[in-house]
Amino acid sequence: MSKAQNIFDNQDFFDGYKKLRDNRYSANDLEEKPALFSLSPDLRGKDVLDLGCGYGENCAEFKARGAASVLGVDISQKMLAVATAAHPDIEFICADMSDLSFLNRKFDVVFSSLALHYIDDFRALVRGVYSLLNAGGYFIFSQEHPLTTAPIGGAGWTKDSDGNVLHYNLTDYACCGKRITRWIVDGVEKYHRTFSEIVNTLVDAGFTVEKMLEPAPTQETIERDKSWEKDLHKPNFLLVKAMKRYE
Amino acid sequence: MSKAQNIFDNQDFFDGYKKLRDNRYSANDLEEKPALFSLSPDLRGKDVLDLGCGYGENCAEFKARGAASVLGVDISQKMLAVATAAHPDIEFICADMSDLSFLNRKFDVVFSSLALHYIDDFRALVRGVYSLLNAGGYFIFSQEHPLTTAPIGGAGWTKDSDGNVLHYNLTDYACCGKRITRWIVDGVEKYHRTFSEIVNTLVDAGFTVEKMLEPAPTQETIERDKSWEKDLHKPNFLLVKAMKRYE
Repeated sequence: MSKAQNIFDNQDFFDGYKKLRDNRYSANDLEEKPALFSLSPDLRGKDVLDLGCGYGENCAEFKARGAASVLGVDISQKMLAVATAAHPDIEFICADMSDLSFLNRKFDVVFSSLALHYIDDFRALVRGVYSLLNAGGYFIFSQEHPLTTAPIGGAGWTKDSDGNVLHYNLTDYACCGKRITRWIVDGVEKYHRTFSEIVNTLVDAGFTVEKMLEPAPTQETIERDKSWEKDLHKPNFLLVKAMKRYE
Repeated sequence: MSKAQNIFDNQDFFDGYKKLRDNRYSANDLEEKPALFSLSPDLRGKDVLDLGCGYGENCAEFKARGAASVLGVDISQKMLAVATAAHPDIEFICADMSDLSFLNRKFDVVFSSLALHYIDDFRALVRGVYSLLNAGGYFIFSQEHPLTTAPIGGAGWTKDSDGNVLHYNLTDYACCGKRITRWIVDGVEKYHRTFSEIVNTLVDAGFTVEKMLEPAPTQETIERDKSWEKDLHKPNFLLVKAMKRYE
């Protein structure tokens, strides 16, 4: 299985990412996080795994919601250094989530926030998560929206001479595979998958799809900053809640 | 419940549509039909309903595949006149599929080919289909792809000065609702729904999503006519296979 790129241990990327996430009006905070937590079941007494946990903020929230145990996994030692310092009461492991076979324990809920579009072998990852879940458990994840990951040349918009967005430039939607884009730094590797590939991979592994979300900006967000209107043309995120029904 | 537009009984539309379907290299024949039939279970001995059956071609194929009974429903008397003449052995009913409560019988498989994007109240339709199915039965449908139905101003492409497609002009994806477009004639009413709305409506009604397809043109099709390449940027169709597990 191919190893995921560890872009978060690139110092320039790490610094740029930290700056981006410090903005309290980011798409993560306004669109992705509320949607992710809206999909969460009652976590009280549950064993929770967070794949691509980054700074561990979500792990802390799962703990605050009553999880019996929370394990955060991330490939980046730099991210986990921040996570461990901020949340000394939570367990973190530095590992590539592409191969979780070393974990000899089971979980009730597996979360993953904005990490799966970095994974090449989605099928193997989904099967791995399935085998880590107890029956009745959930796999809840967010990822970059397939319309964002689609264009091989990178996502782009067409604007008029006043800078107003006319449309999103969609290309290559049907062509699944690696995308090399600039995001904070050059050469960030991501993987494009269509909706149907995502759904079919989950179903093939045994999951039942319970809910999907493509969060749009609220009217309040758009009124504060009109530039959010473009997210009505093309969502930033896709979220999925899938259930393992049987052992 | 709002009644669906009966555009197929408009003579200009009917004539234009017939001409379009007479082309054996249409997207229906090369992309939609193979995908639809690939989702079909073994039909031998099954009771089959076809919603928006049009000329009844698919009904005839279901019969040829061994279905015990086939009922075709369509809102257009003109379409059903063609269907009845071509397939006198199949039962057809002229009705708006938005309200199927008058059918006091059950089915094993409900098909619908390229008709659901004409329906306003998708939730009511899905619930209606669910109640018509036996446990273990399937709802298998194709529709215009959500990326096709999205733009409020109608689907459009950006081309270079030589006529080569640069990208699809995506707008309004997040804005579900009515679209009034030109297709053969002006004023054709369609309804845009996002992927997540489609999936969540099926799940809320009790269905389990078994498979989704977004067919792309084959290499052979593209080699014969390069203009098909644009379907790699934006698929024409979405197909769904959903199951009613329990009564």
